Order: sequence, then C-alpha cells, then structure tokens
Amino acid sequence: MQNFQFYNPTRIIFGQDTIKELPKYLPKKARVLVLYGGKSVINNGTLEEVKAVLSTDFYYQEFQGIEPNPHFETLMRAVEVVKKNKIDFLLAVGGGSVIDGTKFIAQAALYRDDPWKILTQTGPAVTAALPLGTVLTLPATGSEMNCRGVITRAETQEKLSFRNELIFPQFSVLDPTKTYSLPQRQLENGLVDSFVHTIEQYLTYPTDAKIPDYFAEGVLKTLIEIAPDVINKKDDYSSRANFMWAATIALNGILATGVPEDWTTHRIGHELTALYGLDHARTLALILPVLWTLKKDEKIAKLLQYAERVWNITTGSDDEKVNLAITKTEQFFQSLGMKMKLSDYGIKKDLDLLIERLELHGQTALGEHQNITLDVSRKILSAI
Amino acid sequence: MQNFQFYNPTRIIFGQDTIKELPKYLPKKARVLVLYGGKSVINNGTLEEVKAVLSTDFYYQEFQGIEPNPHFETLMRAVEVVKKNKIDFLLAVGGGSVIDGTKFIAQAALYRDDPWKILTQTGPAVTAALPLGTVLTLPATGSEMNCRGVITRAETQEKLSFRNELIFPQFSVLDPTKTYSLPQRQLENGLVDSFVHTIEQYLTYPTDAKIPDYFAEGVLKTLIEIAPDVINKKDDYSSRANFMWAATIALNGILATGVPEDWTTHRIGHELTALYGLDHARTLALILPVLWTLKKDEKIAKLLQYAERVWNITTGSDDEKVNLAITKTEQFFQSLGMKMKLSDYGIKKDLDLLIERLELHGQTALGEHQNITLDVSRKILSAI
Repeated sequence: MQNFQFYNPTRIIFGQDTIKELPKYLPKKARVLVLYGGKSVINNGTLEEVKAVLSTDFYYQEFQGIEPNPHFETLMRAVEVVKKNKIDFLLAVGGGSVIDGTKFIAQAALYRDDPWKILTQTGPAVTAALPLGTVLTLPATGSEMNCRGVITRAETQEKLSFRNELIFPQFSVLDPTKTYSLPQRQLENGLVDSFVHTIEQYLTYPTDAKIPDYFAEGVLKTLIEIAPDVINKKDDYSSRANFMWAATIALNGILATGVPEDWTTHRIGHELTALYGLDHARTLALILPVLWTLKKDEKIAKLLQYAERVWNITTGSDDEKVNLAITKTEQFFQSLGMKMKLSDYGIKKDLDLLIERLELHGQTALGEHQNITLDVSRKILSAI
Repeated sequence: MQNFQFYNPTRIIFGQDTIKELPKYLPKKARVLVLYGGKSVINNGTLEEVKAVLSTDFYYQEFQGIEPNPHFETLMRAVEVVKKNKIDFLLAVGGGSVIDGTKFIAQAALYRDDPWKILTQTGPAVTAALPLGTVLTLPATGSEMNCRGVITRAETQEKLSFRNELIFPQFSVLDPTKTYSLPQRQLENGLVDSFVHTIEQYLTYPTDAKIPDYFAEGVLKTLIEIAPDVINKKDDYSSRANFMWAATIALNGILATGVPEDWTTHRIGHELTALYGLDHARTLALILPVLWTLKKDEKIAKLLQYAERVWNITTGSDDEKVNLAITKTEQFFQSLGMKMKLSDYGIKKDLDLLIERLELHGQTALGEHQNITLDVSRKILSAI
C-alpha cells in the first residue's frame, strides 16, 4: 500500500427534505450569494425552496448563468457581485459546473492578483477563500465533496484545473428527489462520469491495498446495477439515492487511499471538450476503452481483477477475460447513449491541434507510470 | 436508503515514516501534552520518535499511565496537568484507550462543571474542547477517526460513552510499522473489534443502500483475508497496513451512511468488561453469534447477503446458509483466540447483576428495532 493522506471536512446532509436544514449550517448573519446555472433549478423548484429557507434569517443575492464547463469570464462577473454586495458566503445550487465555478469565485474574490493566475499557477499562492456550501442537483462530478475544480477560458478555449483545501464545501445538501427533473442526457453523463472517476483511481497496477479496491468495485457495481432504473424510472428514489451517493464517493478521495492513479482519460478528454464542446462524460467513454487496449500489458493484473470482480468473468484465457471486460464496459457506455467514435458525434478531429494543446498544458507524461507521452496520446486520439 | 449526515474532518496521515510530518499539523507554538499508556510505546521507540520531532519547535509535557478501558480517575489527573502547564494541544500516542481518554480530557479541561456529568449527560452541554491529534499504534477501535469515546469509572465499575463533534482528532498519524511490536492478544482483539464494528452497521435489515453494504463487505473480507498474516507474520507491512486502514474505516462513519445500526453486541459487551475486566473484543465474540441465532428471523435478509457475499456460501436452504455463516464467523473468531463461553475465561456470571446494570444504563430497548428488551438480553447472557 502506498503512503497517503486523506482529508475531507465537507459535511454531507443526505436525503429527502434536507434543504430545510440549510440555515443550521450557514454562519450566523451570513451575506449569501446563491449561484446557479440556467433554468432547471428554477423550473424544478429547487431554487425557490433554497430562497424560502434563506429568506427569514439571511441577506442573499442571486447570480444566474454559470454555464456547463464554466467560463472564467462569467465567474469574474460573479466576483464583482461578491465584492459589491460584501458577500461572505457562497451557496452553489446545481451540478459540478456551478460548484466548480463557485469554488473558483471563492478564491478569486480574495485574490490579490489577476485570478487567471490561480489557474495557470503563475501568481502568488491562494491563502484565503470565501466559505461555500452546495445544494447538489446533478450527481456526476463529485465536486460537492472535494477541493478541486475545472474552469474554461472561452476566449482561448483552455480548460484548466485547480485544487486547494480551502475550497472544500463546508456542507453539501444531497436530496435525491432534486434529480427527478434531470434530462436523460445528463443522467447518462453523470453515470459515465462517476464510473470513469472510479476507474481512474482503480485500474492501474496492484499495490495490495484491499480497502480502496473493494470500495472502487462496490461503486462500479452500484453504478452498473442502478443505471437502468436511473434512466428508465423517473421518480425512483432508491436508484437516484444510490446514484447520488455513489457519484459523491467516487471522487471524495476515499478511493485513492494507498493506490496509484491514472487520469489519462480525463486529461485527454478535457482537450476534446475545450476544442469541440463535447460533453465531458462522452469524451471519457471514447478514450477509456482505447487506453485499456493500448496499455493492456501494463494494466493486466487490474484488468483481470476488474473482469472477475466487477463483471463476474471467470472463464477463458486472461486475454479473453480482459477483452470481454473491455467489451462489457463499452456496452455499458453504449447503453447510456455513449458513442465509440468521435465521428459519430459529427466531430472531425484535428490531431495536430489536440497534441499541441496537450503539450501546451504540460500533459506530456500521463498515466500511473507517466509513460503516456504525446506519441501515445496521438495513438489514442487516432483510434477514437 | 435512510437519510443521513456524514461529517469527518480528521486528517489521516498514513504510511511508513509519517511521524516526522507531525510538526506540519500542530498549531504554531502549541504547548503539547503527549499522552500514552504503559511501556509499549517506550519499548518500541514510538514515544522517542514523537518526542524527537516535537523537541525542536514545541513545548511539551508527558502524561503516562492511561490504562485499557481508561479510568475517569486517571484522566482527571491528566486534566490537572493540562491546567497547571497551560497545555493547548493534546497528542495521544497509543491505541483506542489512550485516544478515548484524551478525547475525554479535551472536554473535561474546559468544562465548567463536574466532568463526570459529561458522561452521565446531566450537566451543561460541552461547548468547547482542546484540539487533539493522535499517533496510532493499535488498530482496533477506530477512535483515531471519529468523535466518540468510552470511559470507565473504576470506583463504580461503570463504562459510559460520549460523542461530540468537537473531539474529532485534527489529525491521526497511522504508521503500520508501529504495530510490529504488538502482542498477539492485542492483534486478535483488534481484528475482532474491527470486524464487529462493521457488523453492527451492516447486519440489520436491507434499506437498498448499496454503497455502505459493498463497503462493509469489503472491510469484512479484508479482515478475514489478512488475519492469518497479521497474526503469523510479525513484520509484514502489507497485512498490517490493510489492517490499520480497515480498522479506521470500520468506525469512521462511512459504513453507517443510509443504513440502520444495531450495537446490541457492544452495549451488552460493555457491561461484561466493566464487571469482569474481560477484553472488549472477547465480549463481542461471545455475544454476536448468540444474538444472530436469537434474531435470525428479523435479520434473515442481511444474514443471507452476508453468507453469500462475505463467505461465498451459495448452496443449501436459507437456513443452512445462515447457520453456516454463523459457524464460519465463530470459527473465524476462534482462529483469533476467542472463546465461545464466558466460563472458558474462568468467569462465573451474575445474570441478575448484569441485567441490573443494563437497566441502570438505560439499555432496555437495544437493536435496530429497539426490541432487545432486558428479557432478550437475559436470554443472550444466559447462552454465553
């Protein structure tokens, strides 16, 4: 088992009718900015519910319009609202994009240099951030219980990530009924995103770390088992509750305790999303099976474990088992509307530009062995 | 899935040679009290190592002598040391007893009434506690990553528990090599204790909460798999590391997310330890199989799931499967030196006194259905 640190101080308030508990966890006399995306939290009533519980005891303002793959430019407008209204607590209502955006705003509002430097890591360290909480409506990114985020600069089509312990949400309210109104595409994306988050921390090489392995397999089996009900049953509390908690667990750090991590699929996927606007999850589903096929020899032990423990594949040669596991994974993705070729989305890729972008962002030695060079990434991108 | 809260802000610093990272996580200029039990942390060098990393930058005092099932009387002596030396940080070096004791001291030192009332819950609420950290040497109780503790009053042979979010350790250093010098009996106890902690949160009735079920099964399988190496291989890093992390996870709250809990075995076990001094884990191993046999009908769904998923029992009638699972559990306990009868420890029980004690401590409606009345407890105690 590798040495590790685990630290996660976010309070999870999980279940039906939990939004009403919000005031207990806000600082007294907080001046709150409620941040959200588009119309979905208006239409499904979540925003109204949040505003109703805030209205008696708290000053609050709203900021609408944090888009998917949140834009630096949008977030900087929110920073102005924070400063003008002496906001001292941020409350994100939405999915990963709204939460990631809010985490960036939390830092940018107190940063004494150009906030773009938080992303490029070329300025002073971030030493303070506004406290924040979340009301989650879309299980997918795990942002509600970690200290990371990803931001896009529309102007230059760059997608950059950040991490800082200061931006752990103080609390996250997870009410599974708030997912009932989600469109199918977002449910599909959320299931695949959570699945691949788990895989990035699991499917590398064995370190004899039993707990994270069993836990990762539990998350993967949960997602596979619940996926049909999540998609087909609109108001099914059980499958939505399991989905919400699985998606949060998938990226709250517990699966990474003592094991190496890969993240190749994400790094390459980010470039596809930034250049072509393809949904994050859909980029992951394209890349992962190709990566596994290319790196089968290095990942063989964990691929076999995955085949046996997640898909119950117990017969055949090692190669047959692994190939079947990859096929089953592809079929699982396809059952969730994922395509296996970029061209199926009507996107014509510019290989040279993609490689250039990876290089620009320092993604030249990816994977658990840091041996996914730009040449290997080119092979992966050629095959999708 | 039941509604739940999950909150656990303890930082885990896990792995070989991690004690040297301590100073990073202590408040600057902290005045530290290092608390420990007997000679084991002296003999194995852990105490020296801790003192060496503290010595350059911190004022510290030592408090030796926190006994197994820590005594209120001993801890109140430590409170005096805290006050006299203006201590502002407590560092527990040891196992669950030292950590539980330290958590009590953290509250008692700032409590404005008789600290015994913290345990009887008859005084004012605890609203402040000294910050604390731990260096764990004995995987067992999970106290290193939760906000609970159990204290014994020697004078009256009472064993009482407490819980307060203020006493989460700020950090816990888990270096598996620090367990190498543990005597076999403590390793056996730790494995059984962790196992039963997991069971108390798992073996009740189904709520369709997939994550905590898979996670609990992962912890149980881990403990079963590593037990022989933990006992037979003295310096085996892999089994000790898996043991240490499994024991911590078993009681850090993650297994209780969305599920009912039992805790009958613990409540009855505490009375046996308080009256007869029998090791905590050994009381658990006595009670659990009897509880399962008595409550088989109510627990049948989870007993079957346990039989199939943890012990791979897939053939036979439901009753045969469950009985085999109970037998395998008993055999697992026996492989760890546990006895199945109180008389095997040379203890002659006083049934009436035990029931009287349960009543005195309000343990009159135990279990996930609150239907373990004193009559049922009497049946359990008669059978052991």
